[in-house]
Amino acid sequence: MTAHVPTLLPAHACLIVHGEDQPGIVAAVSAMITRIGGNIVAFDQYSDNPEGGAYFQRVVFHRPGFAADRPAIEAEVAHTLGGFDLQWSLTDQSVPKRMAILSSKQDHCLLDLLWRHRRGDLPVTVPMVVSNHTTSAEDVRSFGVPFFHVPSTPGPDKSESEAKILELLVGNVDFVVLARYMQILSADFLEKLGVPVINIHHSFLPAFIGAEPYKKAKERGVKLIGATSHYVTTDLDEGPIIEQDTIRVTHADTTSELARRGADVERQVLSRAVLWHAQDRVIRHGNHTIVF
Amino acid sequence: MTAHVPTLLPAHACLIVHGEDQPGIVAAVSAMITRIGGNIVAFDQYSDNPEGGAYFQRVVFHRPGFAADRPAIEAEVAHTLGGFDLQWSLTDQSVPKRMAILSSKQDHCLLDLLWRHRRGDLPVTVPMVVSNHTTSAEDVRSFGVPFFHVPSTPGPDKSESEAKILELLVGNVDFVVLARYMQILSADFLEKLGVPVINIHHSFLPAFIGAEPYKKAKERGVKLIGATSHYVTTDLDEGPIIEQDTIRVTHADTTSELARRGADVERQVLSRAVLWHAQDRVIRHGNHTIVF
Amino acid sequence: MTAHVPTLLPAHACLIVHGEDQPGIVAAVSAMITRIGGNIVAFDQYSDNPEGGAYFQRVVFHRPGFAADRPAIEAEVAHTLGGFDLQWSLTDQSVPKRMAILSSKQDHCLLDLLWRHRRGDLPVTVPMVVSNHTTSAEDVRSFGVPFFHVPSTPGPDKSESEAKILELLVGNVDFVVLARYMQILSADFLEKLGVPVINIHHSFLPAFIGAEPYKKAKERGVKLIGATSHYVTTDLDEGPIIEQDTIRVTHADTTSELARRGADVERQVLSRAVLWHAQDRVIRHGNHTIVF
Amino acid sequence: MTAHVPTLLPAHACLIVHGEDQPGIVAAVSAMITRIGGNIVAFDQYSDNPEGGAYFQRVVFHRPGFAADRPAIEAEVAHTLGGFDLQWSLTDQSVPKRMAILSSKQDHCLLDLLWRHRRGDLPVTVPMVVSNHTTSAEDVRSFGVPFFHVPSTPGPDKSESEAKILELLVGNVDFVVLARYMQILSADFLEKLGVPVINIHHSFLPAFIGAEPYKKAKERGVKLIGATSHYVTTDLDEGPIIEQDTIRVTHADTTSELARRGADVERQVLSRAVLWHAQDRVIRHGNHTIVF
Repeated sequence: MTAHVPTLLPAHACLIVHGEDQPGIVAAVSAMITRIGGNIVAFDQYSDNPEGGAYFQRVVFHRPGFAADRPAIEAEVAHTLGGFDLQWSLTDQSVPKRMAILSSKQDHCLLDLLWRHRRGDLPVTVPMVVSNHTTSAEDVRSFGVPFFHVPSTPGPDKSESEAKILELLVGNVDFVVLARYMQILSADFLEKLGVPVINIHHSFLPAFIGAEPYKKAKERGVKLIGATSHYVTTDLDEGPIIEQDTIRVTHADTTSELARRGADVERQVLSRAVLWHAQDRVIRHGNHTIVF
Repeated sequence: MTAHVPTLLPAHACLIVHGEDQPGIVAAVSAMITRIGGNIVAFDQYSDNPEGGAYFQRVVFHRPGFAADRPAIEAEVAHTLGGFDLQWSLTDQSVPKRMAILSSKQDHCLLDLLWRHRRGDLPVTVPMVVSNHTTSAEDVRSFGVPFFHVPSTPGPDKSESEAKILELLVGNVDFVVLARYMQILSADFLEKLGVPVINIHHSFLPAFIGAEPYKKAKERGVKLIGATSHYVTTDLDEGPIIEQDTIRVTHADTTSELARRGADVERQVLSRAVLWHAQDRVIRHGNHTIVF
Repeated sequence: MTAHVPTLLPAHACLIVHGEDQPGIVAAVSAMITRIGGNIVAFDQYSDNPEGGAYFQRVVFHRPGFAADRPAIEAEVAHTLGGFDLQWSLTDQSVPKRMAILSSKQDHCLLDLLWRHRRGDLPVTVPMVVSNHTTSAEDVRSFGVPFFHVPSTPGPDKSESEAKILELLVGNVDFVVLARYMQILSADFLEKLGVPVINIHHSFLPAFIGAEPYKKAKERGVKLIGATSHYVTTDLDEGPIIEQDTIRVTHADTTSELARRGADVERQVLSRAVLWHAQDRVIRHGNHTIVF
Repeated sequence: MTAHVPTLLPAHACLIVHGEDQPGIVAAVSAMITRIGGNIVAFDQYSDNPEGGAYFQRVVFHRPGFAADRPAIEAEVAHTLGGFDLQWSLTDQSVPKRMAILSSKQDHCLLDLLWRHRRGDLPVTVPMVVSNHTTSAEDVRSFGVPFFHVPSTPGPDKSESEAKILELLVGNVDFVVLARYMQILSADFLEKLGVPVINIHHSFLPAFIGAEPYKKAKERGVKLIGATSHYVTTDLDEGPIIEQDTIRVTHADTTSELARRGADVERQVLSRAVLWHAQDRVIRHGNHTIVF
């Protein structure tokens, strides 16, 4: 039984606007929404420097018949923002984003996302799970989700396995989640994929970049461990951070115990990042994110 | 040395609007701000029910010459919002609010607020501290703040001491903070005072209402203790909550230890509530607060 | 793939001792363990008042051949502690406790426990899940765990359904977990069951006792919500607290959103309480717990 | 008014033992304490590997007349532990440690420690504060604590100012706290000082080692900031960590705002580290700490 949180909003649209800050953007956008018969239900804005910085805005508005009238509304938005030199995107909040999950052997993040999705807590569909191991196949399929096994090509050249994954993904998904997927994706793969990729790293970045962060955390003797969800770029563990969290540990926790306890933080952090991305709450700006 | 966070904003104003939700409020307000030559630097809004609920909006805008042109700008706001049946208030963000502190023997919240104020972290002035004990006099005056001692009238009738406190406060302060002030204020006092009063209660309300919450927490065997800052109403510990927080304790913590550790949470929670109130971030709505 | 945390310890025993504090208990117990050829690997003690209070001690020791020699070792413990007027229990840390789960429609706590168990993170077996609804049957059985459906008898008298549940449980389980089981258990049931029962309540007790805590939390306007795991007694929501936690919410969270976000806290709090109980880390003392 | 937490324990001693793990240590120590007429009030032990690792033990015991009989008791401890090849130290829990504080311009950690000390929450005396700036002189002296101004020698060679600080400290203090002291101490200084030095670093180490961690945190776009208290070694920001904590920040927090909010975490983390050190709860082991 779900908690019945409405994650899809019929006849609602989300308008994201960002670019150089200029006076009058709020007025122009809100007047336009009134003009097209919309009612604003959520409005967030942020300027990183009121005197000539970058401007970010997210507006959710209710507009009966949005889906049918979308072309006209998009034209109106383009016309309104024409004078401002801003980037914008308009999404239909009644349409779920299509999320593919890539996973390896560790299943805690994978199963947590599938379970949240089934419960109705994520405004997404899950067209497929792709894994380089077969261990989770039965679990994934028990959620009614297709499972594809693409073994990793041995050796440093992953182009063969990456090509197979691209065949599955391209055109079928709106974003990809790496749920403890233990392979590094090439720049070529990311470019051909063409949609955002969200990763979960099992440390509080930028501490413990790279492999075996729990082992490194144990060696350094930290008193907290963490997890970081970020957009994947060609720089390993250096992409824009969406969400992070930490929990307290002690000298008595072994590396295995850190991994066991960290799993709880990982799945919470990842699920929040996925939810916010799916709700169009995250705007990328250079190596930063604005999360509304 | 301060951290140099600018808490007062020259030539900035804050417009708070709340009332029945209706289409077009954002458009009307933002167009008005453009019209008067203002530039929006922060915009928050919330509707507790998009289909006919209550609407809340906070806009901070930059407007050169705001202080001089304030009467004309207020007239423009009144004109703009005239058709909407909304309540509104307009404050000058370059003018600090005048905050009086009432205290008793416990000094941790009192000294923390004075220290944050001196450091430049609170956009307030502190015209006076009033205490029913003399123990903090020297500390308070070392911060350059006047200290007045008003002993509590013995017995249940506090009208005499309350009258003395009112003489000191009325007309001189914009809000009052009870920094672990151990006297209950009468409805008559609150009415005559006429400005908001913020209290810090040393529990996670509504758990452990009334006296000796740490003793009650020890008796119940809780694993977390907390603190709650709220606006004072005539119902003891029942006013609108502004901020709360908790920390972890164990079976080994005595009641005294809970009090010692809780003091850290109390001063953090109170200082956040005071900051947000002073920045006009808190809107009262029945027994709730909207905190932007 | 599991994190490989060894939760069962071959040839290890746990000795819990509690009662009136007296000098020499540590010396007597540790000398005894040396005498029987054991090596202490974890030692915790607590006295709630060094001058004549209650004493609590948990010792885990390694002793090759413990299972075979247990009768002789128990006799040695009894002999050693004979002069102290203390209660004690000795458990084999290589033997998992048998945990039954009672559930209703909400499945987040249920599935989380089953998943943690499968992952190897809980030193228990799960002989059965009993539910008054059928919705989780397939999920439970996919974990290889028997599922029994016992509908709740309509009306206030639950003796018929309770009798059926007792038939299933008595003799087969070492403790019972109520994973959001929405029925109140009678004093008669608890007595006949004769093993500890652990509940998860979806509030920070003692705030919001009884039904619909998230609704009450929304009405009161709290800024944090919480969850509490406690041993069940005949006083509803009043039993000894094992673990609690809270998370931050805002004015914008609806009651449904509180329920969705609270589900994460509930499953974390319950899983910690279950782990600690299964590891013999929790000692009940009146309405309190000592958690080592 | 203080919370009256008894931080000094008359007629109590603390015995710290560490070294190679061997069977029988607990039994030998506890029998010895019984033999000398002591009663154990707190007992903690930890072994980093039950099969031949390092062993750590902290025992607090009540022994009437401890101060007078200390030589005889020390001989008994030496005799008891003679066969074990362990290091040990015995401290009188009724004697406060002498803590010097080194500070620069930032006063939040300095004043917080002085205030906690005056409140009775730290089992220390504060014989002096040494600063390379004069800004805090009046504040420090208002707490009844001597203030010495030792300007930092310009240029990289700090031997002159370090020599002056050593003259003040050596022989007069049991440990030193760097309360946001913005000078790096030389290896020579640390060796001549000969007592533990505790630092507070304004990041979650090992993230953002070195100067300007809040600026680096802003640049990386983290969603949490933290603070770390550690023992000072000759490797900058690499010493054994005693305590850490984090708080949540957002994209909207400027570097100055991070510094303001971080100040709260810094003083909490430092005060906990100081308390635990003063209570002999922290054992150093290589680059790690065991905190009981």
